[in-house]
Amino acid sequence: MASQAYAGAGRYCGPASRVRASGRLAGKLRASAQATTLIGLLVAGTASAEEAHWSYSGETGPEHWGELTEAFERCGDGRNQSPINLADRVEAELGSVRFDYGTGIQSVVNNGHTVKARVGSGAEMTVNGHRFALEQFHFHAPSEHQVQGEYFDMEGHFVHADADGNLAVVTVMFEEGDASPAVGQLWQAMPMEAGAERTLEDARGFRPGDLLPEDKAYYRYNGSLTTPPCSEGVLWLVLKEPVTVSGSQVGLFREAMDNNDNNRPVQPRNARAVME
Amino acid sequence: MASQAYAGAGRYCGPASRVRASGRLAGKLRASAQATTLIGLLVAGTASAEEAHWSYSGETGPEHWGELTEAFERCGDGRNQSPINLADRVEAELGSVRFDYGTGIQSVVNNGHTVKARVGSGAEMTVNGHRFALEQFHFHAPSEHQVQGEYFDMEGHFVHADADGNLAVVTVMFEEGDASPAVGQLWQAMPMEAGAERTLEDARGFRPGDLLPEDKAYYRYNGSLTTPPCSEGVLWLVLKEPVTVSGSQVGLFREAMDNNDNNRPVQPRNARAVME
Repeated sequence: MASQAYAGAGRYCGPASRVRASGRLAGKLRASAQATTLIGLLVAGTASAEEAHWSYSGETGPEHWGELTEAFERCGDGRNQSPINLADRVEAELGSVRFDYGTGIQSVVNNGHTVKARVGSGAEMTVNGHRFALEQFHFHAPSEHQVQGEYFDMEGHFVHADADGNLAVVTVMFEEGDASPAVGQLWQAMPMEAGAERTLEDARGFRPGDLLPEDKAYYRYNGSLTTPPCSEGVLWLVLKEPVTVSGSQVGLFREAMDNNDNNRPVQPRNARAVME
Repeated sequence: MASQAYAGAGRYCGPASRVRASGRLAGKLRASAQATTLIGLLVAGTASAEEAHWSYSGETGPEHWGELTEAFERCGDGRNQSPINLADRVEAELGSVRFDYGTGIQSVVNNGHTVKARVGSGAEMTVNGHRFALEQFHFHAPSEHQVQGEYFDMEGHFVHADADGNLAVVTVMFEEGDASPAVGQLWQAMPMEAGAERTLEDARGFRPGDLLPEDKAYYRYNGSLTTPPCSEGVLWLVLKEPVTVSGSQVGLFREAMDNNDNNRPVQPRNARAVME
């Protein structure tokens, strides 16, 4: 196994210094204009539509994101964008990944683009010895990534940042079958209207790790945020084993999205390799 | 061996349709605004300093490239830039690469940034069954890439494009030792002044493939042009086996560069993996 380093990502200072919000972040990051910009954009881009209104169809849909505002340029001109079709993969000695998500989420938000669970401090992932703090997780239906050209019914994105602001997103694919107890528990706090925020009755007892499949084998590639500003330099780990959800669990999520798809089309792979 | 595809890179139409200059290129490429832009920028960026004056030091040096003009922005804000330090590599089942460079070069140009050999039609490289036409090759001293943090004395870049304008650069590392007959032959046409262009006496007989090492094992990663506009989406194959050149061969090249280094500093790897 070759160890993989993320250049520009120095020592991780442990859970006590983990990154949570752009304001508190600034003082904690080592001086890195690029990293700070990326996280700043992430928070702005996924927490609200401050920059410009965007959507998943019509004149503010994915094919126009790059033209909506200068801050979204990369959505149009980036050569390392996400999602992609995970095909033509390269066999590689990928290191192991460990999830220490613990218990507890803060709240569940419907921001009109997705339904997102905010995560408090202490949850983390370690990939090849490099630690990333879990910031939030959210969902897309249908899936954003394809595997061999096939979509799944739903996709969960677990968004992490290291101490330098480098981002890593872990993806879980959901396919219709038996209901997922963890999804069922989470959906109890599903805010059905854009702009609403709710708290799980047993928010402290919820275990985000219960949403992950048992087998943690993954595909790895280098991409971007899948929503404006589509910032690049994001490490993607797509878990291979899908998790089942019931048709009505998918249906409830779609209802919260006004029955609109919230997945960006797959982007060109260009010179990138997908490793497995 | 897993086959690797370059998304957006469709069927290659064979040597007859290979890409040579931006004008002739346009009609031959399939409609792909992104690919056309990339090649257009490549030709502008490496053939002349039309866009803006840039250099390897001072106020127009690498740390300022991104601010010199909007067209060079990616040099400053890109998260997938070249060169890099080839370290912390991932073992992978990389496919084989075949070089069919044949014989003949058109001319040797000193553009003030490098010394570059223009290549006519017919020279090509095939990686995992995907064909790229050789456009030109040029040199940097010291090397641009590092291997485990170490520079080499010189680096040769063989720049290729496929039928869709996707770029692939093959790198050869040169270290001081025995003189290279192929470099010696090429240097006979070395234009010592910026702006000069010369032709080899036996230009038709010169074999670009003689500049490559015997062993074609390589490192692979996804990066950018190492000169403005630093366009991304470039496939890099760095040949592992170095080739020797004499001290005076390196010295003559450096003299043609007015004894200035012409290598961009290594860039952050960010979320990218280097495969070997």
